Amino acid sequence: MIASAPGKLFLFGEHAVVYKKKAIVTAINLRCFAKVSKRDEFRISSPLGVTGLDFNIHPYISHAILRFREVRDIRGADIEIKSQIPPASGLGSSSAVTVAVLKALDAEFEAALTNEEIYEMARMVELDVQGIGSGTDPFLSTYGGSWIIPDRSPLNLGKIHFLIIDSGIKSYTKEMVNGVASLRERYPEVIDAVMDAIGKVSESAIPALENRDYDKIFDLFRINQCLLKAIGVSRREIDEMIAKLEELGISAKITGAGGGGCIIGLGEKDALTKATEIFGNAFFVKPEKEGVRIEG
Amino acid sequence: MIASAPGKLFLFGEHAVVYKKKAIVTAINLRCFAKVSKRDEFRISSPLGVTGLDFNIHPYISHAILRFREVRDIRGADIEIKSQIPPASGLGSSSAVTVAVLKALDAEFEAALTNEEIYEMARMVELDVQGIGSGTDPFLSTYGGSWIIPDRSPLNLGKIHFLIIDSGIKSYTKEMVNGVASLRERYPEVIDAVMDAIGKVSESAIPALENRDYDKIFDLFRINQCLLKAIGVSRREIDEMIAKLEELGISAKITGAGGGGCIIGLGEKDALTKATEIFGNAFFVKPEKEGVRIEG
Repeated sequence: MIASAPGKLFLFGEHAVVYKKKAIVTAINLRCFAKVSKRDEFRISSPLGVTGLDFNIHPYISHAILRFREVRDIRGADIEIKSQIPPASGLGSSSAVTVAVLKALDAEFEAALTNEEIYEMARMVELDVQGIGSGTDPFLSTYGGSWIIPDRSPLNLGKIHFLIIDSGIKSYTKEMVNGVASLRERYPEVIDAVMDAIGKVSESAIPALENRDYDKIFDLFRINQCLLKAIGVSRREIDEMIAKLEELGISAKITGAGGGGCIIGLGEKDALTKATEIFGNAFFVKPEKEGVRIEG
Repeated sequence: MIASAPGKLFLFGEHAVVYKKKAIVTAINLRCFAKVSKRDEFRISSPLGVTGLDFNIHPYISHAILRFREVRDIRGADIEIKSQIPPASGLGSSSAVTVAVLKALDAEFEAALTNEEIYEMARMVELDVQGIGSGTDPFLSTYGGSWIIPDRSPLNLGKIHFLIIDSGIKSYTKEMVNGVASLRERYPEVIDAVMDAIGKVSESAIPALENRDYDKIFDLFRINQCLLKAIGVSRREIDEMIAKLEELGISAKITGAGGGGCIIGLGEKDALTKATEIFGNAFFVKPEKEGVRIEG
């Protein structure tokens, strides 16, 4: 059985959502595909290598198998991963692979899990691997769509396209979230106030996105990026990329945990085309309505 | 008669103080000298040129003369300005020249003004020229010292030295303050939250400065700079200078209204020396206890 699940994109509010502030996220039209077939032992093959249950090389898939075995005691499976989502780049590749594997396991071994159960299981896997996690990524990989979180109110983004530039620097969610938490330990009032400000950016962005008020979305991208930099999740290479994009007239920010990963940008068509010429790892994504699904 | 008055430096909280948040400022050991002698007409000579009463070329001095004439009806004066403070760079050159001129006029024409009256007069001049102004710069030029504002509680900074780098780009307080006000009109809740955050940075900086906790002061400089960028008062050239300073291990931020002007930095001695080699317009300043005074 083959299942696929979409990646995701933070438009506004990453990190602040950990502190119960509003954020805006969307599933995107990049998917991870998991092919599962019955087998006596576990065999996981992905661009990272071919392994058995392996909590170092394939932590999300291995933990997904453990969680799945709590409902169906399987002895083995052949799991083959193909993903359109660049890994460790803030685009939700980990949750997409987790959800896709769980869905394909469910279908192959006829466990009759609901999507709600798959989401809950993927959420546990996120915690198994990362120790922390808001559940946002598994939620989007499972259900698709565009959402205001943490309330999980749906948002209609229309036909908007986002420029994504992969910085080529890995982004590790756990490290970044811990880094912010430790900055907050030293300067609790400062960081809480910055988190408040990020939350206000997200709140202001909701009507701007609904009304396609690009001038405002541009401003709010810029402000959000400065606030992300304030909490220590940007870096010089990213700052320079964003400065170059701004020179082209593109408003851009980190998307996801930061420290690396991807930049999201919005701008006029000509500027965006120029950006794809200047930056190697540039591509476009759009919001995706559909969540996890069985393929073919 | 010759009078002199010191320039000033914002350590933390510029712009936020306009919105009643805390800021930290200090008078610095750079002075503006005003020599006043009796004469039948007004003649103002400064590095900007030689004029009579001239509200374009010498707005602060000309308005200071008008204000002084409300207490003593003089027909003329020879006013000669020599300043150690780079103009339009956020170091309080305007208020220093205003206060020095008022003090020298007072002494030359024996008006017997108190420093309180000189401060009040300088504050009016600030409003005459800029239309807005918190009175902070005239306060520091008049009284010297290091202060928490708006409460005006004194602060002991000890023997700290600050690296100052003049970006060479003029900084116009009124334009920058208006720019922030207009951003706030569009995104009131966002900008108010950022102002809150800047206020919290200043509050956290008070004990850090008192305890000479440089690690914290470094962090808070960095965060403050990001928040200044969020409210739109940084610019690419300044961002790049700050990035270069950070590479040397120096924590730096805009000081004053921004959009240009000066950068203030703190770091280890070796790093600071390197910075003065890399940047042409770099110099050191220290807190100044004495305010306006008659020279010689």
